[in-house]
Amino acid sequence: MNDFRHGLRVYIEDTDAGGIVYYANYLKYMERARTEYWRSLGYTKPALFDGLQLVVRDVSVRYLKPAELDDHLQVSAELTAVSRVSFEMKQAVYRGDQLLARGTIKGACIGELSKRPERLPMAMFETLKSHMG
Amino acid sequence: MNDFRHGLRVYIEDTDAGGIVYYANYLKYMERARTEYWRSLGYTKPALFDGLQLVVRDVSVRYLKPAELDDHLQVSAELTAVSRVSFEMKQAVYRGDQLLARGTIKGACIGELSKRPERLPMAMFETLKSHMG
Amino acid sequence: MNDFRHGLRVYIEDTDAGGIVYYANYLKYMERARTEYWRSLGYTKPALFDGLQLVVRDVSVRYLKPAELDDHLQVSAELTAVSRVSFEMKQAVYRGDQLLARGTIKGACIGELSKRPERLPMAMFETLKSHMG
Amino acid sequence: MNDFRHGLRVYIEDTDAGGIVYYANYLKYMERARTEYWRSLGYTKPALFDGLQLVVRDVSVRYLKPAELDDHLQVSAELTAVSRVSFEMKQAVYRGDQLLARGTIKGACIGELSKRPERLPMAMFETLKSHMG
Repeated sequence: MNDFRHGLRVYIEDTDAGGIVYYANYLKYMERARTEYWRSLGYTKPALFDGLQLVVRDVSVRYLKPAELDDHLQVSAELTAVSRVSFEMKQAVYRGDQLLARGTIKGACIGELSKRPERLPMAMFETLKSHMG
Repeated sequence: MNDFRHGLRVYIEDTDAGGIVYYANYLKYMERARTEYWRSLGYTKPALFDGLQLVVRDVSVRYLKPAELDDHLQVSAELTAVSRVSFEMKQAVYRGDQLLARGTIKGACIGELSKRPERLPMAMFETLKSHMG
Repeated sequence: MNDFRHGLRVYIEDTDAGGIVYYANYLKYMERARTEYWRSLGYTKPALFDGLQLVVRDVSVRYLKPAELDDHLQVSAELTAVSRVSFEMKQAVYRGDQLLARGTIKGACIGELSKRPERLPMAMFETLKSHMG
Repeated sequence: MNDFRHGLRVYIEDTDAGGIVYYANYLKYMERARTEYWRSLGYTKPALFDGLQLVVRDVSVRYLKPAELDDHLQVSAELTAVSRVSFEMKQAVYRGDQLLARGTIKGACIGELSKRPERLPMAMFETLKSHMG
């Protein structure tokens, strides 16, 4: 069971001429929720830290119902797998009780300068392992 | 074999503080290539036409190497399946010979107002079928 | 004196390869604050309502210090002029006590379909007039 | 007289639920044209070079007519002032003969790490001076 949720508002910047949230923007919403999830674990700038960078390797998103202007959404983030060099998260976007989209993100740790795979710091790895869903 | 490619430049707007193209922006690049692919088939405003709208139902993207500021990229678009109410496209992002990312997009046709599934116009369906990769 | 402030977080989506918030994104932040300001006056979807649309006619922004990844910002919105067909707002972006940017936005009311100038509904005009800074 | 123009297509990513190009995106279009203008002078990554960075200090944009989905636009860029530490450009966005928006951008040169004002390299300064409109 996934308890972590991040709330956000849909603004006009997020919508497109189809009158709905532009499909790429769900990836922004999901990353905001992941960022807040990392923050809840004590990692305040996880996208870029200590010469390391968490990057996304694989994304899959299923879009079920469109979000619209002014909607207040909840975005979940659940850690479902973790190794020394990668992790997987399941995420979902809700409007009230309605599931609008769900996704799976696989990420990896790379060197900020080398852009090559690096191990997660052991303390971070242990923390992530202890919080798996 | 996939012949359709759309060229584009990476601008500063596309990058993030990690020094690479932000992961959601590959979905923008892929949609630009799809739009130009539809245009090459004679459909000039496919996201929104005749009270119909093409929407994305499923996206999956694998990120292999990061694109960077000022890169000139080629984005392919190949139609790999089509029915009266849905279609599938394979896409890839290249920098010269290097494959940077590849994705699969499943789309559907909905009513612009109803937001419910609608059949593609028969002429469009026939055109798409005749161009499958 | 301007009392209305909207708080927001800088996410990686907002930054660019220069390591700072991309300059166009301050316009997103300012519109979020204007939207929340309208909401505080009882207008919940002001960008698009009753066949009318509020659009921006003029923007000027001065950038003083860059916002960075993970900053928590406050964005003010103050109504400084209003007529039946237009309005002006002063806005500022703060990080704690630091003023990062300030801007002036002039907007107008147009018909959603006609895209031509239309009068603000009288009740909205009266409400705005009574809240001028 | 301003001769430099950069052509671009409006994609669905650029539009909003009002059915027009989102107002912040004109700043993206203008920066694309500035980037291509710098490139035409031989500067291929002007946003970030040699430990220096060109940043925007002031923007003003007047929006005259909205751009719409699928429009092909021309964006001009003309250098109207330059000193050792700053420059000014006038820009305009056209759809065919129609002027849709015009803007003035004042920029400065800063250190990439220090984020403090730095002088433009003399050769770049001389090049810019010789190309003033």
